[in-house]
Amino acid sequence: MLFEQITIVGVGLIGGSVGLAAKARGLSGRVVGIRRGAGSMEDALQIGAVDAFENTLAEGVRNSGLVVVCTPVDHIAEVVIAAADHGQPGLVITDVGSTKAEIVASIEGELPSRIEFVGSHPLAGSERSGVRHARADLFENRVVVVTRTEQTNVTAVDRIDGFWRALGARVVQMTPEEHDRALAVTSHLPHAAASALAAVTPTGWLHLAAGGFRDATRIAAGEPRLWAAIFQENCSEVRAALEKYRERIDQLLSILGTGSREELEQWLSEGKQVRDALGS
Amino acid sequence: MLFEQITIVGVGLIGGSVGLAAKARGLSGRVVGIRRGAGSMEDALQIGAVDAFENTLAEGVRNSGLVVVCTPVDHIAEVVIAAADHGQPGLVITDVGSTKAEIVASIEGELPSRIEFVGSHPLAGSERSGVRHARADLFENRVVVVTRTEQTNVTAVDRIDGFWRALGARVVQMTPEEHDRALAVTSHLPHAAASALAAVTPTGWLHLAAGGFRDATRIAAGEPRLWAAIFQENCSEVRAALEKYRERIDQLLSILGTGSREELEQWLSEGKQVRDALGS
Repeated sequence: MLFEQITIVGVGLIGGSVGLAAKARGLSGRVVGIRRGAGSMEDALQIGAVDAFENTLAEGVRNSGLVVVCTPVDHIAEVVIAAADHGQPGLVITDVGSTKAEIVASIEGELPSRIEFVGSHPLAGSERSGVRHARADLFENRVVVVTRTEQTNVTAVDRIDGFWRALGARVVQMTPEEHDRALAVTSHLPHAAASALAAVTPTGWLHLAAGGFRDATRIAAGEPRLWAAIFQENCSEVRAALEKYRERIDQLLSILGTGSREELEQWLSEGKQVRDALGS
Repeated sequence: MLFEQITIVGVGLIGGSVGLAAKARGLSGRVVGIRRGAGSMEDALQIGAVDAFENTLAEGVRNSGLVVVCTPVDHIAEVVIAAADHGQPGLVITDVGSTKAEIVASIEGELPSRIEFVGSHPLAGSERSGVRHARADLFENRVVVVTRTEQTNVTAVDRIDGFWRALGARVVQMTPEEHDRALAVTSHLPHAAASALAAVTPTGWLHLAAGGFRDATRIAAGEPRLWAAIFQENCSEVRAALEKYRERIDQLLSILGTGSREELEQWLSEGKQVRDALGS
């Protein structure tokens, strides 16, 4: 057992899966939930994602060794700081936010010295949301990014790293800025591209959309509220990624205007090469 | 039995599946293949996609009631016209090309009066290719577009329509131009968008790509040679779709620059709305 009690703030798809996975793997004697937003407490209790809900952060946090904050990214820093007020000495707090730099910067220097924060981002989201979709195996063989800065406590990093590994994940450590630069391209840009694809498609043509369209636009079904927050928290990196993407689209437009067949095949081959490197 | 003998020119994923499906459903006594490009005759014979291969169009076509041309789009018209030279009276020729207007326009007026051509496009492609991936159920519940113009023989349209329905498909009839305008948005644009996404991603970041990236870029693995031909055959519609797409990306860039949170959520909601209308 890694922690006698874990508290999860925001028991949705990710938070619920943390609870299910921690219990399934015997990492915690007790998992306490703090409800945030519109999540269903009944569902979370019924599937066993948490053992109990507490109404306040103070009640929910004070006996825990680990707090996992699973709120939308624009609320994470404030929740972490508020939770730290009620934590016992040695409490480690982490989060699961899709952006890291602003969150980590807002928290550093704001916590009492007895409490440590380490940023996390499990790459295990989905276009679905809600605790109903939570799964005990959600993190198995998934990458979890754990961030460290010069101020991050090394022992706390080890504990959070070990926690995710104990849930079956592969952990990659990097700085919050490295995370945000890469994820702008590998996650935030694809969301924007998928949303734009869907939005320019008249619904009257959807019966002419096959598997390719379905795959390419799947993530566009994600919650606008959550993704707007992600785009804003990581605004400059998302804009830089979008600019590069637009240049790439412009290249294709130019090739289709005056370019050769060879240039067109070359343009397509460069994308195929990267996709093939990823594997199916 | 709809046709005593069917000839398939180009026995890959789609052509092989036509053969498997026609035989599985007893629509044809015999399926003859004509090899085009690098396809494997051994594989096609082994899985039973065709009963035999003929070396020449003349041999392969002369006893058939239906010829299905499954070559890359930039070879379809020439193969159809060549096959028609060897056809018996009443032969109907169709194709499975992802573009229609240029193909149909190149063929109309070029066939002897005893032979009819009707354009088809089964929306059943994949990033995979090759007869090894052919399946007898590939067309079940898939949409097949069947094109008609003022010159298309109505009886031939009925026969081709009936053929695809007999393979389990849902048939949608439209003009070649309507097809190309819609498919530029529902198929060709997604391919371009997916390819661009993959191409702007450094391979060193692929370990930070999760399911969303995987889905959004899957079709980028398609064959550049085939897709270059599709883009060129449908060039003006593809460019129009890309221009609209770029405007949509520009909108997002502008919102991220000076827009409000509400505008950002609205932008994302418009994409979600279309994607939700498609269903999972």
